[in-house]
Amino acid sequence: MILDWKEVAGKIYEDIKNKINTLEKKPWLWVILVWNSPASLSYISQKEKWAKYVGLNFYLTKLNEDISQDKLEKEIIKFNEDKKISWFIVQLPLPKHINEQKIINLINPAKDVDWFTKENIWKLFLWDNSGLISCTPKWIKRLLEQYNISLVWKNVVIIWRSNIVGKPLSMLFINEWATVTVCNSKTRNIKEYTIIADIVVSAVGKPNIVTKDMINPWSIIIDVWFNKINWKIMWDCDFESLQGENYITPVPGGVWPMTVAMLIENTYLAFLRN
Amino acid sequence: MILDWKEVAGKIYEDIKNKINTLEKKPWLWVILVWNSPASLSYISQKEKWAKYVGLNFYLTKLNEDISQDKLEKEIIKFNEDKKISWFIVQLPLPKHINEQKIINLINPAKDVDWFTKENIWKLFLWDNSGLISCTPKWIKRLLEQYNISLVWKNVVIIWRSNIVGKPLSMLFINEWATVTVCNSKTRNIKEYTIIADIVVSAVGKPNIVTKDMINPWSIIIDVWFNKINWKIMWDCDFESLQGENYITPVPGGVWPMTVAMLIENTYLAFLRN
Repeated sequence: MILDWKEVAGKIYEDIKNKINTLEKKPWLWVILVWNSPASLSYISQKEKWAKYVGLNFYLTKLNEDISQDKLEKEIIKFNEDKKISWFIVQLPLPKHINEQKIINLINPAKDVDWFTKENIWKLFLWDNSGLISCTPKWIKRLLEQYNISLVWKNVVIIWRSNIVGKPLSMLFINEWATVTVCNSKTRNIKEYTIIADIVVSAVGKPNIVTKDMINPWSIIIDVWFNKINWKIMWDCDFESLQGENYITPVPGGVWPMTVAMLIENTYLAFLRN
Repeated sequence: MILDWKEVAGKIYEDIKNKINTLEKKPWLWVILVWNSPASLSYISQKEKWAKYVGLNFYLTKLNEDISQDKLEKEIIKFNEDKKISWFIVQLPLPKHINEQKIINLINPAKDVDWFTKENIWKLFLWDNSGLISCTPKWIKRLLEQYNISLVWKNVVIIWRSNIVGKPLSMLFINEWATVTVCNSKTRNIKEYTIIADIVVSAVGKPNIVTKDMINPWSIIIDVWFNKINWKIMWDCDFESLQGENYITPVPGGVWPMTVAMLIENTYLAFLRN
């Protein structure tokens, strides 16, 4: 069974499009780009496409890659204070001469898409629902909801403990009454955990780290990350052998459809709130 | 094998006593008490005893239980600004008419013993070592260190997901390269996890939730919490059957020796830093 995130993302877009249609003022999605990497540009083009599709105002501010810390901070403060911007993104990564954490923490928490500001990590930790949820943990939760898969009672394994996926997702799922195990690259035997798991989330970037012998037939597999090996995109989970009995996210197809859909949804929700 | 926290705490006190002896100015440990519960008073008397033993200046500010939110906030601000106080404690819980989270977040993060302010949770999450660690997660880590038990490669089960023990401890251990599972009261079968665990930390308050059949002979058992059942103190782990092969924290004896030792150590470290 495929967890069809393209279909789920499509439904979310249609729903938001209808809601935005009824608004007199349209919300803004504003992206600040400092480092023109091809990956960032391709990601931004997807954001622009879908923002415009649902009827958001979209604007991209391209700053010079050589911008000083001081000037970038002043830009962020301008965005914080601009009342028409309900939500904005500083596209990461930033150039190396910039103190990234300092920039992130300057963002008004109510406008923080990545949910990395102190305020929002604290809210996640204490399970304060008033914070918006960052796009990656959020889409995983939404995808499961769409297939009526509850987290209560579930054994969940999260493979790798990154600040972007593993740690925030673990907090989110712990709060949602899942029994959560977080593995890392020194975990002795991941299979000990995957074999008793109902849900396996892999976000490593190491080809075929999850294989059929590690998984129960009833397990749900969410494959978040991939890597390029000899120019070929390789995902964490051995999709060929795993598809069939298991619920699994599709490969190829990428996580972008759901990530971008969550960004669009968050922008709309932040607009309603602010 | 007993993990003898009284002995470990004793060593920590002697070490700090020697260090404080060499200081010209003595650090202050200041406790703010709003709610005079017997538990809080007994805990504070332990803090006072050991603070004085190692040579700290100790002071207790007793406020009226009816104090208004506004007045309590003003008190906290006074403590934040007082340069002679490197570290202070607002003894929890606070009376019900007080917004506890608001009070906690008012505390200067550099003086925050409980490590509950936004700033310190964020530092824990991102594994920024510059933050001090709150007493309960810290003593568990220190106790293991004292017995040369590394967290790297280890399977750890934390039983219950509280904001005070389970969640901060999980972040701390994830950052230290342990494979961490956090259980909650809806976990289907805790034994599935404890049986493959190297370290089991129980912080529930439910008698004998951890029994011998759930544990491997090489597992290390840390029992953090207890409850009174018919006036008898009952710990989470079935100590009688578990002692022997396993490394285990002693019952009775309580966690206070290590918690207070960590408080004293944190006070000293905060003094050096500020």
